[in-house]
Amino acid sequence: MSMADDEDFMRLALEQARLGMGLTSPNPAVGAVLVNGEGRVIGKGWHRKAGLAHAEVEALRDAEANGEAVEGATAYVTLEPCSTHGRTGACTDALRNAGVTRVVYGARDPNPAHAGMADEVLRGAGMEVISGVLKEECDEVIRPFAKWITTGLPYVMAKCGQSLDGRITRPEGESQWITSELSRSHAMGLRVRCDAILVGGETLRRDDPRLTLRGEAVPEGKVQPWRVVVTRSGDLPHGAKVFTDEWRERTMVLKGEFSFGGILQELATRGVMSVLLECGGNLMGQAFAERVVDEVCWYVAPRFCGETSSSVGGVLPGSVRLERVRHLSLGEDVLVSGVPVWE
Amino acid sequence: MSMADDEDFMRLALEQARLGMGLTSPNPAVGAVLVNGEGRVIGKGWHRKAGLAHAEVEALRDAEANGEAVEGATAYVTLEPCSTHGRTGACTDALRNAGVTRVVYGARDPNPAHAGMADEVLRGAGMEVISGVLKEECDEVIRPFAKWITTGLPYVMAKCGQSLDGRITRPEGESQWITSELSRSHAMGLRVRCDAILVGGETLRRDDPRLTLRGEAVPEGKVQPWRVVVTRSGDLPHGAKVFTDEWRERTMVLKGEFSFGGILQELATRGVMSVLLECGGNLMGQAFAERVVDEVCWYVAPRFCGETSSSVGGVLPGSVRLERVRHLSLGEDVLVSGVPVWE
Repeated sequence: MSMADDEDFMRLALEQARLGMGLTSPNPAVGAVLVNGEGRVIGKGWHRKAGLAHAEVEALRDAEANGEAVEGATAYVTLEPCSTHGRTGACTDALRNAGVTRVVYGARDPNPAHAGMADEVLRGAGMEVISGVLKEECDEVIRPFAKWITTGLPYVMAKCGQSLDGRITRPEGESQWITSELSRSHAMGLRVRCDAILVGGETLRRDDPRLTLRGEAVPEGKVQPWRVVVTRSGDLPHGAKVFTDEWRERTMVLKGEFSFGGILQELATRGVMSVLLECGGNLMGQAFAERVVDEVCWYVAPRFCGETSSSVGGVLPGSVRLERVRHLSLGEDVLVSGVPVWE
Repeated sequence: MSMADDEDFMRLALEQARLGMGLTSPNPAVGAVLVNGEGRVIGKGWHRKAGLAHAEVEALRDAEANGEAVEGATAYVTLEPCSTHGRTGACTDALRNAGVTRVVYGARDPNPAHAGMADEVLRGAGMEVISGVLKEECDEVIRPFAKWITTGLPYVMAKCGQSLDGRITRPEGESQWITSELSRSHAMGLRVRCDAILVGGETLRRDDPRLTLRGEAVPEGKVQPWRVVVTRSGDLPHGAKVFTDEWRERTMVLKGEFSFGGILQELATRGVMSVLLECGGNLMGQAFAERVVDEVCWYVAPRFCGETSSSVGGVLPGSVRLERVRHLSLGEDVLVSGVPVWE
């Protein structure tokens, strides 16, 4: 099998893994593909939910259901297989017992206590192991888990829909919408990826957002993310949608003087592994000033608003540069995403 | 000749026309291609400068220099050929006298007094005429001329290099640059397209820009655009580069209370057919508020600056939406360009 083949099969495993993004907390999203000696895919699977089977086991079951012989097959897994017994058995054992003779994986286990352990276990069982195939893409899928497991804090995505001149409100008397329906529907995919959505009291008073999951992008099994309202004053409208709709039990108010450090710790205790900031400029500016943002998704509409509310308020101690920048045209809007670098 | 062929040859004529953009004031940029009966290009040309030969004549001379027979050829011209004698003879005559039997053009003459006249003249001389081929692209090349000829005012391009959050300065103590070298070099191409570059006194005091033409994108024959400094106070630094460098004769100060309406009229009297705004947020906001902007070129860098200077300052009477929006990735920056719609 050439390196190009390995990458092709890993790409299939990545497709599987991405199906689970946002569904597996506090586990990582993982995908796996089994390929027999003739280079044919005989099974594939992805981890659907913490407590359910790991991706490797899903793929083995799929091969079995297909009536395929796994003996001598290669397993492609986006993440280093677990070699310890958790809620489920060790995947290294499952692969060996099924007759897999070669394991190719992408990302190393971000838990320093486990990293690289699978190599030893698998090789000890006489299997060939190749690691680091499409490492960057595989790392990206587990970024929330990697932060969570190494720091104990949730992964923070900052999302904004703004005008070209950096404004999140339009002049008096105009529609509240700045970005297009296409952008807003794309942004729904960010909510799917997170365990909590955070706004400030100001956004609640001004926009009364639902912060629910809607549209075709929402996969089965995705739980409504926590709706976290951060408020200094505690002066919140009792009739707001997040307090009265069918998901009101999934709304959490954090009241008082706070820092993002404190907020993230609080959210961690509630099992939140990733949080999406959908707040206004003041909170957003504070998040940047506190350097807690791990990923930025900025939807920019081709419109100028002049001096209304800023997308990033307050004076920053220094500017924040993005790396791994991507531009995605969404009709006439453009999504700029990237990873902040704290210089 | 099929319509697809006509479009292909018109694309070649457009390539020719674009070579003249910014060089031909107060004339439009025009390109022409001659194609013989076998469908072979036998000559091409573009209008280089007001007072010199029109594109059609350049193409006829090119064919002659190539030793090609023009008899029975088709002429592809981006703009309706002139049918009146100006500083040069009428192009309709030149085409007919050379033996061209078919004329295909893109844009109609934007001068209402001349629009469509060529059709009549050419058909009267027994030639076939087709108009409107790649009309939109051909119209775009002559937008500055079209505004000038119909309103008597210069075409206004607004250019800005900003952070993702709409800021044109970085926090205290950081470099002055926001956008990348690639973006800045691309923006040099906008200076080539214009007859004047406008800034405010504030920009002069803060950045002391040169506002000159530099780099590979500058074509031979391009004259240094006027450098227009708009100032209420008249308090300008005498040592500024625009007052002391080799092009100081190409610097113009407009002093006093002003509106963009007045500025544009003043510039028109100096023969300025197109002006590039490179000013700060206050003047830029005023230009939007006065609705004088014809085209927007916004370079957006992947960086957040927080509350520093805005790219569009002041309260706008309404937001300004762009149409014909384009996104161009320039490394990690993205250029958003478009045409403002005044709703």
